[in-house]
Amino acid sequence: MFQRILIANRGEIALRIIRACKELGIETVAVYSEADRGAHYLSLANEAYCIGPASASESYLKAEHIIAAAELGNVQAIHPGYGFLAENADFAEQCRDSKIEFIGPPHEAMQKLGDKVAARRIALEAKVPCVPGSEGLVENEDEAVRVANQIGYPVLIKATAGGGGKGIRPAFNEHNLRTELKAASAEAEKAFKNAGVYIEKYIEKPRHVEVQIIADQHGNVLHLWERDCTMQRKHQKLIEESPAANLPQSVREDICKAAVRLVKTAGYYNAGTCEFLVDKNNQFYFIEVNARIQVEHPVTEMVTGIDLIKEQIRIAAGGVLEMKQRNVPCNGSSIEVRVNAEDPEQGFRGCPGTITKLRIPGGNGVRFDSHIYEGYKISPYYDSMVGKLIVHKPTREEAIACLKRAIDEMVVEGPGIKTTLPLARKIIEHNVFITATGDTSFVERTW
Amino acid sequence: MFQRILIANRGEIALRIIRACKELGIETVAVYSEADRGAHYLSLANEAYCIGPASASESYLKAEHIIAAAELGNVQAIHPGYGFLAENADFAEQCRDSKIEFIGPPHEAMQKLGDKVAARRIALEAKVPCVPGSEGLVENEDEAVRVANQIGYPVLIKATAGGGGKGIRPAFNEHNLRTELKAASAEAEKAFKNAGVYIEKYIEKPRHVEVQIIADQHGNVLHLWERDCTMQRKHQKLIEESPAANLPQSVREDICKAAVRLVKTAGYYNAGTCEFLVDKNNQFYFIEVNARIQVEHPVTEMVTGIDLIKEQIRIAAGGVLEMKQRNVPCNGSSIEVRVNAEDPEQGFRGCPGTITKLRIPGGNGVRFDSHIYEGYKISPYYDSMVGKLIVHKPTREEAIACLKRAIDEMVVEGPGIKTTLPLARKIIEHNVFITATGDTSFVERTW
Repeated sequence: MFQRILIANRGEIALRIIRACKELGIETVAVYSEADRGAHYLSLANEAYCIGPASASESYLKAEHIIAAAELGNVQAIHPGYGFLAENADFAEQCRDSKIEFIGPPHEAMQKLGDKVAARRIALEAKVPCVPGSEGLVENEDEAVRVANQIGYPVLIKATAGGGGKGIRPAFNEHNLRTELKAASAEAEKAFKNAGVYIEKYIEKPRHVEVQIIADQHGNVLHLWERDCTMQRKHQKLIEESPAANLPQSVREDICKAAVRLVKTAGYYNAGTCEFLVDKNNQFYFIEVNARIQVEHPVTEMVTGIDLIKEQIRIAAGGVLEMKQRNVPCNGSSIEVRVNAEDPEQGFRGCPGTITKLRIPGGNGVRFDSHIYEGYKISPYYDSMVGKLIVHKPTREEAIACLKRAIDEMVVEGPGIKTTLPLARKIIEHNVFITATGDTSFVERTW
Repeated sequence: MFQRILIANRGEIALRIIRACKELGIETVAVYSEADRGAHYLSLANEAYCIGPASASESYLKAEHIIAAAELGNVQAIHPGYGFLAENADFAEQCRDSKIEFIGPPHEAMQKLGDKVAARRIALEAKVPCVPGSEGLVENEDEAVRVANQIGYPVLIKATAGGGGKGIRPAFNEHNLRTELKAASAEAEKAFKNAGVYIEKYIEKPRHVEVQIIADQHGNVLHLWERDCTMQRKHQKLIEESPAANLPQSVREDICKAAVRLVKTAGYYNAGTCEFLVDKNNQFYFIEVNARIQVEHPVTEMVTGIDLIKEQIRIAAGGVLEMKQRNVPCNGSSIEVRVNAEDPEQGFRGCPGTITKLRIPGGNGVRFDSHIYEGYKISPYYDSMVGKLIVHKPTREEAIACLKRAIDEMVVEGPGIKTTLPLARKIIEHNVFITATGDTSFVERTW
């Protein structure tokens, strides 16, 4: 096992990883940008290095600074968290070249799965249903039109290097497709330095269901059941839960098995998530693999009792998954609400500032994952998420009731600070959420 | 089901009950003394009434004020929490006379079990092992001496109306017994207005193990496994856990079954706890029933997944316990540390004051039950406990590791404020705690 790990991240996930390491008896080295200097969670690490100015591109995204800190800190491994360098295969390779274990999947699998067209090929090989579309990149307008005619409009034009909802454009007819294709390709070239695009059928009113996977370096792969993340706004998840409600047991099992096949075929190990769309007929379609720990991992931890960060570390250290698939529990119902410092009344603009009043909900069934406290300064430089409010109860009905009272208890105040909690409160008391009959555009359509 | 409940308590347990009510969709009426005016948890209740000045005897112990508030607040039931009026059979009867349900056991059973001699008689009737001693009160010195000679010194002189460690004196020989008996009786008369005392064998170096019971009004009784509360200081519990470690499974089962028999024999319903001493040979002896919810109830909630406050309310409303005994789970290991605002360096003197810096631990496996926040003024008028830090993990080893890191994260600062957290930290890393080989005087002997 590692004696010392560097955490190449900030905020709640950095604290989450520090906590797991402490419980495992592993020392931690934190890194921080000038904007995060003095944050309380840094004091919980054994050491902390400043790796650059506030701008992420000059600090948290600066691979060489992080590797230098890892060498100074004398660590054996780096945990990337999510975002920043977490899915950067080059960084993973650089770490390993520097004889530092990267706590994540092998960079070869990351590379393959990071490319959407290659990932689709792997999925088809693993007999995992994919959204109907072009077999690989479309070379020109005519090919795109031919594919679209075959699968029927509307279609989506997707950048092969995109992800997280970025690099996607819909097209509703041939004229539309021809115009958008050029724009999409140019945009992809600019955003991802890769102009490649492909065509997919536009699945109407889908749900977003994803499967948590853990796999060791010895060929053992387990699914830890699914999460429903249908409540989104502009492809950003707002509320996540496990298990998915209103999804037939046979579909749950099929989707979880499909994810296991996919991961095995890709030669993937460590933690990962296979994301699917589920249509009105409960037909599911693979969309992408997230080759990292995800923001919403706690709901899976609550229902399975498995600590995903600890598993990631054990797997990276060569550990063997001893548990059998049939023994992975799924107890009760867990729901997570992301607490974003954003103003829903102002187009969800981030609203940084200093927290002057904070009341954190607690009690039976409540978990709060966050690095904030009274006096904490929410930075304008990074993601607006400042915490995750997670509940776990024997039934979904009770989980929703607990979440309501927890949101009602929570206070995050400060000059100019607003949060997405009131929106979350509205969503969870809406009948569409209660009956789990929504689709991924429900939130945007309704509020 | 009740529409509206009054909570005849303060602090963390008042908040705990408000939370449960909110989750059940029940409105709440809080009461407060002048010292608690403005506390944040009061704002979470639907209504709040001031019931008197700071002194508990003029507010939280004032039955008529509470019943008046209940009538004003138009509630159907009163939850007494723990302490104050929780085990006052007269108050329970007064509530019911006022057509307000008392959320607790029937006052007849409370009365019987509140009297230690009567409780012992019930235990013997239920074939529950009791500490060898006098059959009932000792009438005079000679009888006491005769009993002591029979069972062997040392013995304990106990007030029949005592409880919670109060009204107990040891005697090591005949001379000692004769002197202490008079003092004990006079003290009991003064403290409890009942001079009756009895004699019990002094169990050397016992563990404290207790069994959580829930029973409905229809004759269904369940045990929710045991708690180990051996880590005490002057009969005040410091750390509690479930299940008890280092206790053979057959003993666990026997002790739990004994508790069920006792409760059935007493005609008891609602939640309650049967307390036992366990000697070095794992022989157990009944000591008393706590006819209320206990401070340490959360560890039982964590391992069983059963919400005890909600069950209390459901039972009081006439609900039926549908669950079968064999289906009551005991998952993983849960440990609670009481956070007392006391200075261990100054004889555990309470240290009230205003909290100026607070960092609440969170994350996977951590539950915090407390009403405190930055700016909260810890009152000198009441119990020094300001919160309960509870962890729940798949194994005891992991629970201890989680508790350590959670204690290390926690900050409660303010002018003059100290807490028992550093002592708890020392206890949980001591080999005697880790191996669960301690006895109830271990903490006092060691620190």
